[in-house]
Amino acid sequence: MVHPVSLLLEVSSHQLEVAETLIEVGRFLVIFVVARAIAELLVRLQLPTILGELIAGVLIGASGLHLIVPPQAQAQLGAGAAGLLASLADLTPETVRAIYDETFPSLQAVSQLGLFALLFLTGLESELDELVAVGAQATTVAVAGVVLPFAAGTAGLIAIFHVPLIPAVFAGAAMTATSIGITASVFGELRWLKRREGQIVIGAAVLDDILGIVILAVVVAVVGGGAFSVGPLVKLCLAAVAFVAVALVLSRKAAPAFDWVVDQLKAPGDVTVASFVVLTLCCFAAQAIGLEAALGAFAAGLILSASKHSHAIDTAVKPLVALFATVFFVLIGTGMDLSVLNPFDPANREGLLVAGFLLAVAIAGKVAAGWSYLSKEPTNRLVVGLGMMPRGEVGLIFLGLGTQAGILTPALEAAILLMVIGTTFLAPVLLRLVIPAEEPEAAQSPA
Amino acid sequence: MVHPVSLLLEVSSHQLEVAETLIEVGRFLVIFVVARAIAELLVRLQLPTILGELIAGVLIGASGLHLIVPPQAQAQLGAGAAGLLASLADLTPETVRAIYDETFPSLQAVSQLGLFALLFLTGLESELDELVAVGAQATTVAVAGVVLPFAAGTAGLIAIFHVPLIPAVFAGAAMTATSIGITASVFGELRWLKRREGQIVIGAAVLDDILGIVILAVVVAVVGGGAFSVGPLVKLCLAAVAFVAVALVLSRKAAPAFDWVVDQLKAPGDVTVASFVVLTLCCFAAQAIGLEAALGAFAAGLILSASKHSHAIDTAVKPLVALFATVFFVLIGTGMDLSVLNPFDPANREGLLVAGFLLAVAIAGKVAAGWSYLSKEPTNRLVVGLGMMPRGEVGLIFLGLGTQAGILTPALEAAILLMVIGTTFLAPVLLRLVIPAEEPEAAQSPA
Repeated sequence: MVHPVSLLLEVSSHQLEVAETLIEVGRFLVIFVVARAIAELLVRLQLPTILGELIAGVLIGASGLHLIVPPQAQAQLGAGAAGLLASLADLTPETVRAIYDETFPSLQAVSQLGLFALLFLTGLESELDELVAVGAQATTVAVAGVVLPFAAGTAGLIAIFHVPLIPAVFAGAAMTATSIGITASVFGELRWLKRREGQIVIGAAVLDDILGIVILAVVVAVVGGGAFSVGPLVKLCLAAVAFVAVALVLSRKAAPAFDWVVDQLKAPGDVTVASFVVLTLCCFAAQAIGLEAALGAFAAGLILSASKHSHAIDTAVKPLVALFATVFFVLIGTGMDLSVLNPFDPANREGLLVAGFLLAVAIAGKVAAGWSYLSKEPTNRLVVGLGMMPRGEVGLIFLGLGTQAGILTPALEAAILLMVIGTTFLAPVLLRLVIPAEEPEAAQSPA
Repeated sequence: MVHPVSLLLEVSSHQLEVAETLIEVGRFLVIFVVARAIAELLVRLQLPTILGELIAGVLIGASGLHLIVPPQAQAQLGAGAAGLLASLADLTPETVRAIYDETFPSLQAVSQLGLFALLFLTGLESELDELVAVGAQATTVAVAGVVLPFAAGTAGLIAIFHVPLIPAVFAGAAMTATSIGITASVFGELRWLKRREGQIVIGAAVLDDILGIVILAVVVAVVGGGAFSVGPLVKLCLAAVAFVAVALVLSRKAAPAFDWVVDQLKAPGDVTVASFVVLTLCCFAAQAIGLEAALGAFAAGLILSASKHSHAIDTAVKPLVALFATVFFVLIGTGMDLSVLNPFDPANREGLLVAGFLLAVAIAGKVAAGWSYLSKEPTNRLVVGLGMMPRGEVGLIFLGLGTQAGILTPALEAAILLMVIGTTFLAPVLLRLVIPAEEPEAAQSPA
């Protein structure tokens, strides 16, 4: 391999290989050990493990120990780690830092694979039949839970805090998400999953994912152009709606064709490879018509959810999610600059107010959605509202893509992160206060 | 993200993201569709699927359609593919080619993950107890099957073809491997796996893997220094032997500790993440003491082979291997320059002779190993010798690492590839001629 950095730095290609391997392997090691340690702590506190991955990222990242530092975070690999790697590879710490930055895109590629695998799994586990059973009520809750935080958040950021239109719209969009995984695990643990409230929330969360990812795809694509204009916006909305409609139809019709193809395959790894081909095909198609590839990954999962091999696909995808989605969430934490939220610096007061505002709107908007539906039977509307609250992994995906697209200020990034952490943390805690537990079990989350 | 190429080429970061995603997703799509199509064909001919992945790589690579072209192959993305991507991302084909080359390391990082996963799985599935049962005979066959091709190959390349010492030693080392997976699948299919011949071959193949990977680790590390010298060589040999000895001891002693840790873990994905931590730890340790990280991956598998969770680990690793090891094998094929073997060009005559010589030594050396052991019972020594013959994935791992280290000429690379393909192709064919099939089944291979 010809490495541009080897020409610049005048080190032998063998030393470079050694340093690259040490850096790439060592990064995984740090990410997994720290994320797992904190996740284990949170599980014992009956909190979602995804919070642990975020906190691990913040701890080891640009705001913490400087062990994992994305090049865009304007921070450098910590002196201790750089020194250790330098002595092992027989290079100077400066050279190690240059190789570190140069190899960072490989880690980002792995984290992107994790994002696609997670969205694919979310689509795969979406039970569209559940949505149909509680159809009208779930639809009302989902739409209210998308419209209320989006409208109030965007309008408030523009009117009160004078945030420009594009980042305000993006932050509003990031508040529309609902994490199926976290909600389902808390309801399951409290044995409310099969009650009407649980069914409405899960149905609404599925629909919310679809709405949220469509909004995301449109917002990122429009924002990518640098400014809002009506023509492309309408075109993209139509493309997004058409894409999801085709995916929903295919989830009913295409699964038998997929199953037939898989049955013809005889070489090992057939289900895994065939699913991955569907995944890449959908990602490519989504990106080719101007939408986010992430929407394609979700659609691929929806399409395959009706396959008779869906259990085998699930088994094959879960290890990928356990490994690579963790990298995705930890990387989000590493890039955060939490110093912008230091309350002792008067310059940060505005940022803290924005964070508080987003958190309040994020809670109020979803809780209010609990009162949006009509029901003949009495249901606990507070439980429905609180169940819609955790943004979890979906909110983080929004944040991660917004950061990648470079449209958020550090203060707004940190505020969105606090909103995601706050809602994800508070939802299980508040639900446990509102619902008396019949028989406590260990909490579970999908990542 | 700040992309160096975006500054150079003056394209917007959104266009760049779109082009990157299209390229990265599209590359996976091409790799998997073509590799799977050819693997399915070969399975129906009862040939190992790994040949299909190699052939797919050659077909779509620098010697073929130019759809997947490693930057070091001095070839460019084909005009058709570049044009399609350029029109989808609204860029020029030249810009697409620049982004293509810039993002190639991400694909290589994924292929490296596949290599580690495959070696981990090989270690995990090594049944050390089988080795002990046929101990003496398997050891003799393994040592003879390593020493004969290595000595004859290296000496012949230097004496007859005047190849310099370092590439000659490397080519000799590449001939020592035996593919457990291919051998086991052919013997299993012919129902000879539980006979004495099958037991000796599998035992010898396990030991051969250990010897081969140790040789590889030492050769690559010594060659990395640019020249042979006795001091580092002795040090590395000792380090390699010590490393494997520690791994073997740990495979007996450390599994209960690992199982205890896994039993304490409560967050989801516990087995997957814990195994990955052991894998990265071993890779880091191997690389840190100057050996190949690949040896660490294999040792990690050996260590965990005695875990009570080994079945769950196996289930978690197999999808990773099915996806990413395929990328590794296809990439090897894409980088090959087969034009150096065109028999109509007189300049290639020497290269063809080298290829023929390597293939002959590779076959003769392993077949002769079948006559190296003492046995009171009558055994079919030709079956044992032919069973040791397929180099398969292990030979390719050698070739891949030699290419990465840049120590082989294109002609020698192509000759080693032909040697690997030839032995992998001939072994099942010749074994079927020598052993009468009792009840034919579909062939299986691990990748």
